[in-house]
Amino acid sequence: MIYADAVVTNISQLVTCAGEKPKTKNDMREAGLVEKAWLAALNGRIVFMGKEKDFKANVSLTRKARVIDASGLVGLPGFIDCHTHLPFAGDRAKEFSLRLAGYTYLQLAELGLGIQTTVEATRAIPAPELEDICLKRLETMLLNGATTIEAKSGYGLNREDELKQLRVLKNLARRQPVSIVPTFMGAHEIPPEFKSDHSSYIKLLKEELMPEIKASNLAEFFDIFCEPTVFNLDETRELAIQAIKLGYKLKIHTDEFVPIGGTELAVELGARSVEHLLNITPAGIEKLAGSRTAAILLPGVSFFLMTDKKAPARELIDCGTIVALASDFNPGSSNLFSMLFVLQLGVFTLKMTIEEALNACTINAAYALDRQDEAGSIEPGKSFDLILCDLPSYLHLAYELGKNPIKTVIKQGKVVVEQGCIKE
Amino acid sequence: MIYADAVVTNISQLVTCAGEKPKTKNDMREAGLVEKAWLAALNGRIVFMGKEKDFKANVSLTRKARVIDASGLVGLPGFIDCHTHLPFAGDRAKEFSLRLAGYTYLQLAELGLGIQTTVEATRAIPAPELEDICLKRLETMLLNGATTIEAKSGYGLNREDELKQLRVLKNLARRQPVSIVPTFMGAHEIPPEFKSDHSSYIKLLKEELMPEIKASNLAEFFDIFCEPTVFNLDETRELAIQAIKLGYKLKIHTDEFVPIGGTELAVELGARSVEHLLNITPAGIEKLAGSRTAAILLPGVSFFLMTDKKAPARELIDCGTIVALASDFNPGSSNLFSMLFVLQLGVFTLKMTIEEALNACTINAAYALDRQDEAGSIEPGKSFDLILCDLPSYLHLAYELGKNPIKTVIKQGKVVVEQGCIKE
Repeated sequence: MIYADAVVTNISQLVTCAGEKPKTKNDMREAGLVEKAWLAALNGRIVFMGKEKDFKANVSLTRKARVIDASGLVGLPGFIDCHTHLPFAGDRAKEFSLRLAGYTYLQLAELGLGIQTTVEATRAIPAPELEDICLKRLETMLLNGATTIEAKSGYGLNREDELKQLRVLKNLARRQPVSIVPTFMGAHEIPPEFKSDHSSYIKLLKEELMPEIKASNLAEFFDIFCEPTVFNLDETRELAIQAIKLGYKLKIHTDEFVPIGGTELAVELGARSVEHLLNITPAGIEKLAGSRTAAILLPGVSFFLMTDKKAPARELIDCGTIVALASDFNPGSSNLFSMLFVLQLGVFTLKMTIEEALNACTINAAYALDRQDEAGSIEPGKSFDLILCDLPSYLHLAYELGKNPIKTVIKQGKVVVEQGCIKE
Repeated sequence: MIYADAVVTNISQLVTCAGEKPKTKNDMREAGLVEKAWLAALNGRIVFMGKEKDFKANVSLTRKARVIDASGLVGLPGFIDCHTHLPFAGDRAKEFSLRLAGYTYLQLAELGLGIQTTVEATRAIPAPELEDICLKRLETMLLNGATTIEAKSGYGLNREDELKQLRVLKNLARRQPVSIVPTFMGAHEIPPEFKSDHSSYIKLLKEELMPEIKASNLAEFFDIFCEPTVFNLDETRELAIQAIKLGYKLKIHTDEFVPIGGTELAVELGARSVEHLLNITPAGIEKLAGSRTAAILLPGVSFFLMTDKKAPARELIDCGTIVALASDFNPGSSNLFSMLFVLQLGVFTLKMTIEEALNACTINAAYALDRQDEAGSIEPGKSFDLILCDLPSYLHLAYELGKNPIKTVIKQGKVVVEQGCIKE
């Protein structure tokens, strides 16, 4: 007999995203659909997924078990947002509106706008205030279905403020239900103090910050922005090798603007993921195909920056790359709070099928965070992270635009969103 | 002394969209911004808009007046969705997913999919059921800020079912708060029964349906789909002239696929609006410029159909056309419920500024429905239709993607959405 303290009955359509971990090629076209599904969990872990008959024959409820009737609803795993820059202060709405009014990049730089404004605001804000801002953002992300997110530092760019960002993430992990996977991204940009002296900043990262942050257990991943104008290929390699040596898992932002071999390097070093890839080369695609390095595509960036350039999602999937989708939530190039909208952008702008986009936002995104055994699909043994949507079928997740159909979010067995509102 | 029975105090930023009705060219770049605005209304009409000091000097509250504190919130006129195909039954999610999986238009037609499935479903459904479906859709639209919508028949394509659609609209206008402007669009498509005999269908429309529907006061506008494969230019002219003769206001769907002079004809006949315009010609643009015919652009269609072709919004605005935006809510080419998302598509895909998009979704959309003296801006004398958003500034309406910031919607002085939920 299986014991359960939480049950969801009669889900009209359950998209499990179960199967290979991660999924590639044709597996990505399978969303693991179960009609009229029953789900049971114990202590926040899924213990049963199947039909009513098997449920009744095998599952026994504890005395205080919670039962949720999901008739007429579509269920799916909580979304995994595997690439965000959550902990920043300030916003760039003014810069954004000037860009719309026709200001060029150079004109905006002359006005002192750009990433530097976010670095200044993030350095200036006290940690508790930053924490409160991020808490509100996480609530919005949760209302839109994210139950696990990755979050990067990288707007402090000095010891004190990178630590501040990462400590804020640690506190947030305790204060609210969304699981947070922290990434140290001191290599997001060259700080203004080191513009003409990259090597001293790299030394600071390698010899002081990276060891200290690892020792404090404040970050699981290390991420590097590999572009000719930020960290070139040699600098990226130097940082990446040190990251691996210290026990970080590795991510690399690359091929966003100018391809200089970052994807190839990432695969060679066994990075968990490469991100962006708008300008990935055929050589980069060939290297990724069949590798264990996931390609994290960020369609919000092309949309937000209004560029026709898109990551070659179809080509990547068709050649056997592990493709995941994420929001790249940040104030300059993707101020986007909703994984449901990311899924829709995957479909409408990257030409992914709905099933591919679903897998890319769940099980493959979990893989990109090394959480494939913990989250990203509805299977016994995994965390009970479930979204219930008021939709006629899972196809409507992409087919219905401009609405939030998510009624209920369950995180580790606890109802955290009810009737579309955060539950206290 | 001005008497008021409803007051909204201290709106951090109020976007009035007041000014010219409609707005063109540089006027479109003005959103009519008032900081720390106070608003007062009596019997659902705005009676005061201004600063606290003037409010206190001039406005006297009735005994049961309702006071809403809008500190920290952004206010704007309720959105006007000036082009929807609201009253249809069924959905086309299956067709949509096959399209994503690579099925061609011809393959889909061979499977019997396309507009015909919606005509069949709309003919088959009993009126009360259709009404309930539409009621749910209107709630979603209201939650996303629409307080007035246009709604077209055109999936019945016979006497009985066109009347059914229009009667449903009439009932809905009484059952819920969103104002509905009804359009008879029997000329949406040639019904299957008349595929080889256009002239008999046109005769039926002109001699029976158009007079009967006008006499029954079931529609204010008449709309025609002017395309070579639907109603050609001569047929469009014939129908349009009859519509005007009978007292309908005129709208024409044109230049969506193949330009055959529909825009030019519309301007010549004094149509209130032309819709779509993805393939409008230079001659069409020249004709529209400075005319009293509004151009209703529907950016959801390009997004939904994943085509790079867009309506030339910038060119139209710059040459002095009255530009409005709308959802084109329909099951085949724009299954889109949110005017806020339409505004964002106007900015991100048509390169409009935020102020232009705001005016296009409010005062210019009101003009396109001949409601410019009733709605679409916050000015004394107009209906008190207000949206309050939890945002730092109105720029964030476009800058923050993937969330619904609308907390409160007021329609004719009544709070109909509170804390983001429909109020019973």
